[in-house]
Amino acid sequence: MRETEFVEQLRRQFPVHAPVATGIGDDGAVLTNPDGSQTVVVSDMLLDGVHFDVAGTQPELIGRKAIAVNLSDLAAMGCCPTAAFISLAVPGLTQSNRFLNELYRGIQSLSERFDFTIAGGDTNSWNGPFAINVSMIGAPFDERAILRSGAEPGDSLVVTGALGGSSASERHLSFEPRLDVARLLTRNSMVHAMIDISDGLAIDLHRLLDAGGTGGLLYLESVPVHDDVAAGLPSEDRLRAALSDGEDFELLMAMPPELVGPASVLVQSQSDSTLTIVGTVTEESGCRMIGADGDVSDLPEIGWQHG
Amino acid sequence: MRETEFVEQLRRQFPVHAPVATGIGDDGAVLTNPDGSQTVVVSDMLLDGVHFDVAGTQPELIGRKAIAVNLSDLAAMGCCPTAAFISLAVPGLTQSNRFLNELYRGIQSLSERFDFTIAGGDTNSWNGPFAINVSMIGAPFDERAILRSGAEPGDSLVVTGALGGSSASERHLSFEPRLDVARLLTRNSMVHAMIDISDGLAIDLHRLLDAGGTGGLLYLESVPVHDDVAAGLPSEDRLRAALSDGEDFELLMAMPPELVGPASVLVQSQSDSTLTIVGTVTEESGCRMIGADGDVSDLPEIGWQHG
Repeated sequence: MRETEFVEQLRRQFPVHAPVATGIGDDGAVLTNPDGSQTVVVSDMLLDGVHFDVAGTQPELIGRKAIAVNLSDLAAMGCCPTAAFISLAVPGLTQSNRFLNELYRGIQSLSERFDFTIAGGDTNSWNGPFAINVSMIGAPFDERAILRSGAEPGDSLVVTGALGGSSASERHLSFEPRLDVARLLTRNSMVHAMIDISDGLAIDLHRLLDAGGTGGLLYLESVPVHDDVAAGLPSEDRLRAALSDGEDFELLMAMPPELVGPASVLVQSQSDSTLTIVGTVTEESGCRMIGADGDVSDLPEIGWQHG
Repeated sequence: MRETEFVEQLRRQFPVHAPVATGIGDDGAVLTNPDGSQTVVVSDMLLDGVHFDVAGTQPELIGRKAIAVNLSDLAAMGCCPTAAFISLAVPGLTQSNRFLNELYRGIQSLSERFDFTIAGGDTNSWNGPFAINVSMIGAPFDERAILRSGAEPGDSLVVTGALGGSSASERHLSFEPRLDVARLLTRNSMVHAMIDISDGLAIDLHRLLDAGGTGGLLYLESVPVHDDVAAGLPSEDRLRAALSDGEDFELLMAMPPELVGPASVLVQSQSDSTLTIVGTVTEESGCRMIGADGDVSDLPEIGWQHG
């Protein structure tokens, strides 16, 4: 069973009820507090041999990534991090206190920068490979969290940064979670819908559009290809990398077209990122792409499928 | 490094700040919402070969245990569960959809009974053994969460149920998290401090007393030994099992002595559990035990030490 089907099955099996307002199927869950304010929860498990290789990676970078992927989810929800909870499965005989100390130094580098508390943990030793789960709590920058749903026909589809080549270049270990962009745009009510690009633009665009019950058209020529994608590759392969490599941890947003200009100025002047229009949201369902030749076809769901 | 030292090191490395009111070192963390109400977060990772054996255990019971240990933590915080987040590491080639479906049936048996939402998940396949992390959100039954700290000299030390033999009997897979007792006693403001007994009464009593900066005296003759501890063992071995087997998931509380009577009546009439006085909180620090012969000595920290 593919991840998408499994998630759909869980959504049917576990209906949401108060105080949970949004459950399985977004970047995070939204809980409503007694006063109507919102608490957002995200959770990600990272595994040796899947999301990093312990043997060839500095423990600091592993700790950093485990936090950063959750920060990226919080950014996609338009939220500021408040607390993190860290569970570890540590191979008993091979990993030392030094490994744990360095791992926690990587965690600390982000907890200090983004000013949240490491508020709990569970450390276990076992005979299996290294595994880490991080759950984080966040609060909306604005009044409400931003969901994947909410895109409206006519909205521009916008991405931060550039895409592709993240795993090969090890950018996936040191990427910048786009909390600053999320803060700027949500505080100014510029975003209708948002998702972070973890499995590749192609898959994650499908998810954004499906969640909103809309369709979309992707401008292939506009997709920003990252410098980490080998320059010598045929342009078709470079585009494919940008669409499907995954682990970009950039943001994909739907916003009113008249706000893209002001939003770009805001982002360029007050953050390290940039915005690029890569498509438009359409009334008719289905996710299509248009190439340089003007041909329109269905956008395949290519990219990293977990499970 | 032992778990206690490692936790102490993390507490120093990651100081708590708002909105986190209580962080590492209790059964759960306490966050203060904008209106002053509290959100409590607990998190536990369970591993094949450590907390259960996948080969010989029904997947339903594994799912049930992963939730139940978190419910026990929430009970110890005096909290009602609201949402759960489930991360899985699944051995790719050996575990089927059937395994996952049965696992989630065990999870559902508790989510329906205790009326909380499964609000998020992260399912990964890998080459390692099965691992599951559950993080849960809760809200205090009363106005405030109950902490480990808060025991006062003169308080009675009280446990629910009986102790020992949990792992050997597989009670650790089917135990009843003491949410009903927690609800009854915290709503009636009967408890000063609380912890769940996961690593054994001896260790967890030390933790409760250390957290409150008090000492205590344990009445060895009063410790309720569970029927799961073999009746044929010498009484010393039976007592040792009750003190140190761990995985009991009963509650250990400090409460004013004059409330033990009313609390016992309340618990016996409105829940499936019972209360037993097992000791008293003392002004002088140190955790001691008194035997049938009246001899007083230090209570050793025997029991299950993770890591």
